[in-house]
Amino acid sequence: MNVNIHGRNRHYRTVTFDATTHSVLLIEQRLLPHRFGLCATKNFRETAQAITDMVVRGAGAIGATAAYGLAQGALAFRGRNLAKFGRHIEAVYQTLKSARPTAVDPVNAMNQVRVQMAVGETVEEQQSLALAAAEEFAQEDVAHCEAIGRHGAKLIRQDMRILTHCNAGWLAFVDIGSATAPLYAAQAQGKSFHVFCDETRPRCQGATLTAWELAQQGVSHQVIADNAAGHLMQRGEIDLVIVGSDRTLGRTGEVANKIGTYTKAVLAHRHGIPFYVAIPLSTLDWTLKSGWDIPIEERAEQEVLGAWGVEPGRWKRGGGRGSNVKTQNSAPVYVRVANPTSGARNPGFDVTPPELITGIITPQGIFKPKELRSRRKELGG
Amino acid sequence: MNVNIHGRNRHYRTVTFDATTHSVLLIEQRLLPHRFGLCATKNFRETAQAITDMVVRGAGAIGATAAYGLAQGALAFRGRNLAKFGRHIEAVYQTLKSARPTAVDPVNAMNQVRVQMAVGETVEEQQSLALAAAEEFAQEDVAHCEAIGRHGAKLIRQDMRILTHCNAGWLAFVDIGSATAPLYAAQAQGKSFHVFCDETRPRCQGATLTAWELAQQGVSHQVIADNAAGHLMQRGEIDLVIVGSDRTLGRTGEVANKIGTYTKAVLAHRHGIPFYVAIPLSTLDWTLKSGWDIPIEERAEQEVLGAWGVEPGRWKRGGGRGSNVKTQNSAPVYVRVANPTSGARNPGFDVTPPELITGIITPQGIFKPKELRSRRKELGG
Repeated sequence: MNVNIHGRNRHYRTVTFDATTHSVLLIEQRLLPHRFGLCATKNFRETAQAITDMVVRGAGAIGATAAYGLAQGALAFRGRNLAKFGRHIEAVYQTLKSARPTAVDPVNAMNQVRVQMAVGETVEEQQSLALAAAEEFAQEDVAHCEAIGRHGAKLIRQDMRILTHCNAGWLAFVDIGSATAPLYAAQAQGKSFHVFCDETRPRCQGATLTAWELAQQGVSHQVIADNAAGHLMQRGEIDLVIVGSDRTLGRTGEVANKIGTYTKAVLAHRHGIPFYVAIPLSTLDWTLKSGWDIPIEERAEQEVLGAWGVEPGRWKRGGGRGSNVKTQNSAPVYVRVANPTSGARNPGFDVTPPELITGIITPQGIFKPKELRSRRKELGG
Repeated sequence: MNVNIHGRNRHYRTVTFDATTHSVLLIEQRLLPHRFGLCATKNFRETAQAITDMVVRGAGAIGATAAYGLAQGALAFRGRNLAKFGRHIEAVYQTLKSARPTAVDPVNAMNQVRVQMAVGETVEEQQSLALAAAEEFAQEDVAHCEAIGRHGAKLIRQDMRILTHCNAGWLAFVDIGSATAPLYAAQAQGKSFHVFCDETRPRCQGATLTAWELAQQGVSHQVIADNAAGHLMQRGEIDLVIVGSDRTLGRTGEVANKIGTYTKAVLAHRHGIPFYVAIPLSTLDWTLKSGWDIPIEERAEQEVLGAWGVEPGRWKRGGGRGSNVKTQNSAPVYVRVANPTSGARNPGFDVTPPELITGIITPQGIFKPKELRSRRKELGG
């Protein structure tokens, strides 16, 4: 999507590969929204480190990063011995896999690359197949998000006011995003609408990443406290809710997503407001039989007890005339907000039952949550 | 209530009057929860300034502060001319009234003082009646909170897990608080329970003030993101909700309170969890006929777009052995969290309809919201 730099829009993907220098180029997400910059990892170890250090985050984005990292590792091999090359690839794979041990996307992405490169008969052939496979993985990610946008844009009517939660945006994918895809597609169709971004405590990905994305694309939006959505719905100021999903149970239609999603679904249901979940197929889980079986990660207390931000005095206005880019001299710092002697509970995700979900927007179309089960084949399950 | 200083508990009221120095002593709430200190205002102008500067906040607390401020102004008068004294009192009244122009409590409190002092036949008599009336106002505030505690404590059973929102605690009153009163009363009865404090974005009075209060009293508690309550209710981890109220409509039973209260009421209703509102009689509004007529203040965008906190490196551990007091060198600073080019919506309050409220805890007993109307006389309306 576009980034406004010095008053001009330039297109960036979250993850790309520079075939000349064999570097992976990543949008440095830890500095957002206060500073925009790219991070170039020169070898697979640096790429793994960037995943570990959260330079890049989001299911699709870390999948593509790992795929490129594997290709990068393959291209760095010198020699013609296929057996040695195979051992080298295994070591690269393990390094990238252990960069974010609980994430499933890097593993799926790298498996896809390994299957495709395996048909090569020489080291050189396998190297170039690895890069082609990584590019294909990234391109598929984009195509899936485009398809989600195509289907989801039909839900957006002129002048709608749309609520989003957390960041299932292009920063979480290679481009376009899942929950944001219908917004960008509707914008491209010339529709006007307004987005309320839940700030999404504790990590505030709505206030930081989604708000930054929407600002770059020129989408009308405002940040709200997570507490405000109920009031706005009660007063008739929200027409549609679109969120993403970390895991969607194909058998039951239950959706695990960032903490607070369930609350928004309950509120939307009470007020008869359509509540949609946009998902790439990779988040579909066909094994679990109940949402109660989804492990809910209890995250660090510090997230709830404080916030990351920048003292306004440390900002400087960047960019040229008409630029909406502000930069700052230092990265966000953590401040303790809560009483210093208190602890916190911090469940990272919650589970929304199918009866609160109007529809699931997939690359294959929009389905009722309970309908997923009967379309397993079509949905790649 | 108690404050733990250097490992020892000492009792403090939020507002008191020092009859020797004629100073109003206020807990300096702007430094909490990071530092505890008292602010002594030496004359009525300083007292008015303390109200304006939010050294003291909360309905009951600013009422008592204004009452003491009026007495302080009366005591400072030199001379025996009753007419001159009357003009002086009027000036003091206006100064204190304009300290927080939209608040109704200072006005009600000062009117009560003026009525009682008016029966004095000399300046000296009126001066001493003013101080007695201010003391009586403060004592009544405490007595009302005690009565709320007595009634509300019956709702609390052993080992309950109780959700609170914002701060309707002793810092908002002279002592004890409204929504916290049942907690402190149940604790005094030897009951054990656990409190989840909604952090209550955007100003985080739950994470800062309520968590600090509960820590000082030794009440088991944890801070949660506002997003987490729905998940905890769904998993059966919350048994009871008690909140305060900024305005309660006696005619309809609707409750205006800090933004997010309505959301918690909707969630509690879905899960069959009792939802109670604790109110002092002063928040009852007998004039409005509908919650839609309650003006919802749109507050500064900055509140949503950032947070106030302290960099942990700036803390130092204070107090003696076993102390749970940490102090810091500087007051909290504001950090910008959200994307620098985004704006915000910031409704400060929301309205909860009576069908979501299990009961209203008043100093006169617990009533169904719809019952208030028939008990208007008893409730001082």
